[in-house]
Amino acid sequence: MLYLIGLGLSYESDITVRGLEVVKKCKRVYLEAYTSILMAADQSSLEQFYGREVILADRELVETGSDQILAGAQEDDIAFLVVGDPFGATTHTDLIIRARELGIKVEAIHNASVMNAVGACGLQLYQFGQTVSLVFFTDSWRPDSFYNKVMENRKIGLHTLLLLDIKVKEQSIENMARGRLIYEPPRYMDIATAASQLLEIEELRGEKAYTPDTPCVAISRLGSPSQTFKAASLKELAEFDSGEPLHSLVMLGRQVHDLELEYLYQYVDNKDEFKKLVEADQEYFKPPPYVAPVENDDEDL
Amino acid sequence: MLYLIGLGLSYESDITVRGLEVVKKCKRVYLEAYTSILMAADQSSLEQFYGREVILADRELVETGSDQILAGAQEDDIAFLVVGDPFGATTHTDLIIRARELGIKVEAIHNASVMNAVGACGLQLYQFGQTVSLVFFTDSWRPDSFYNKVMENRKIGLHTLLLLDIKVKEQSIENMARGRLIYEPPRYMDIATAASQLLEIEELRGEKAYTPDTPCVAISRLGSPSQTFKAASLKELAEFDSGEPLHSLVMLGRQVHDLELEYLYQYVDNKDEFKKLVEADQEYFKPPPYVAPVENDDEDL
Repeated sequence: MLYLIGLGLSYESDITVRGLEVVKKCKRVYLEAYTSILMAADQSSLEQFYGREVILADRELVETGSDQILAGAQEDDIAFLVVGDPFGATTHTDLIIRARELGIKVEAIHNASVMNAVGACGLQLYQFGQTVSLVFFTDSWRPDSFYNKVMENRKIGLHTLLLLDIKVKEQSIENMARGRLIYEPPRYMDIATAASQLLEIEELRGEKAYTPDTPCVAISRLGSPSQTFKAASLKELAEFDSGEPLHSLVMLGRQVHDLELEYLYQYVDNKDEFKKLVEADQEYFKPPPYVAPVENDDEDL
Repeated sequence: MLYLIGLGLSYESDITVRGLEVVKKCKRVYLEAYTSILMAADQSSLEQFYGREVILADRELVETGSDQILAGAQEDDIAFLVVGDPFGATTHTDLIIRARELGIKVEAIHNASVMNAVGACGLQLYQFGQTVSLVFFTDSWRPDSFYNKVMENRKIGLHTLLLLDIKVKEQSIENMARGRLIYEPPRYMDIATAASQLLEIEELRGEKAYTPDTPCVAISRLGSPSQTFKAASLKELAEFDSGEPLHSLVMLGRQVHDLELEYLYQYVDNKDEFKKLVEADQEYFKPPPYVAPVENDDEDL
């Protein structure tokens, strides 16, 4: 059996009781170590908590060496640990499909992920549209595919969760070209970088998917001991020191309920000014005023 | 301190290790018992698992008696247990705002909820639009506000998670009018009822947000020992026996990736027919074909 086990967001003890029982009985335990990190734990603290060896699974191993992970899983129990919930990243679907091809049963043990824990900021989960990802811009690569998606969400009034880039065990282009397995230090996008990239693309595209005054919520270290939220305009957040990783950003939609706003006031510098931002932003993509249909039997329908 | 602790989806042991440690040390432990249920556990099995008393908190207590729940929480630790994650339902935001007014610290211990665990069906979470709720129709109340939201999601190509109604500890109108505290047996909407209500509203509205042939995924007992998925057209699901609760439904959007489709094939009766449904459904809300802009300096821009 292949067990995919979510680890939650931060502590060793964020694993579920059932997940922990399974980890203890498995023959091998892999930790997916390239799409996210636990904020208050690492490989060695997990090994201590579980009382057993944990094998780090990097991108190469998961994407090209999945048969190695799955070896013997027809008879033995193998655990594959994922930060958050196992169904956050595409690659794990690959692993499950491969397991099934090999006749290996698969069971998932779910946990919290940013996709649902983001509700802790006080915005209602059912008011969120599609989630988008922001990658680190480079000199030659500044992808803006997120822009249309934010626009789509905002046109129908919804909030947008923006997941910020994480670079773990990446090679420089030079090292990759020379085939040297030397890795860059890990990088985690902070709130100021994310906000600046968003502002740059709005300036280039100019389609007013949002403005420098659009209200957002900076979410830092969600589910960890030092979790913080900050609600401010995008341009204020471009100057914001968000501290240690991990971070996510939420851009508000037009449909902000009073209860949501009330909750966000805890995280603002100035309640009245934030309220003004929200009200001004709601003018964007406002539905046109209702016009009663004209009754006219002669017209074609 | 008020601890809001997510219980996950099904078993007693779906609580996190950290959540369990907190439950054991709290002075009082409440279980929110009206917006959802654990599928493989109940009050008495939780009491046995925790080794302590668990107080059922019904809607009256949470919505009008929150000060009773919060009594003494300035000094003592109180746990409020919620099926899924604590930030699934609006009412708990109320409780947190009230706690803060009373000077009580609040900490959330997150867990899986249907909002993220739905990824287990193989559809990518970031391809979902806003989540909608379907309530039981009555003779006089057949609300269709979900329809516009499904339409909005589908117009931009996104999947829709539909949460199905749960009626726990509800009074009949007659008993309510007579002030008799007699409650109806619990009811959980099944897939056939949900699909039939969707078809009824499409027939009434006729705006083609979806059709009887639109592909959907029935999600039954997510995260429980008897979890099942069934992918089929809406009209097929209107005849589908989905078994014991709980159920959710996902309506597919236009942007179905090959990997998503590949994954869904496990849950279909006939792979080729399902593929045809998906292809036909993708014609809805298809973006207009690309037309190259005409270069003409004389025209106004």
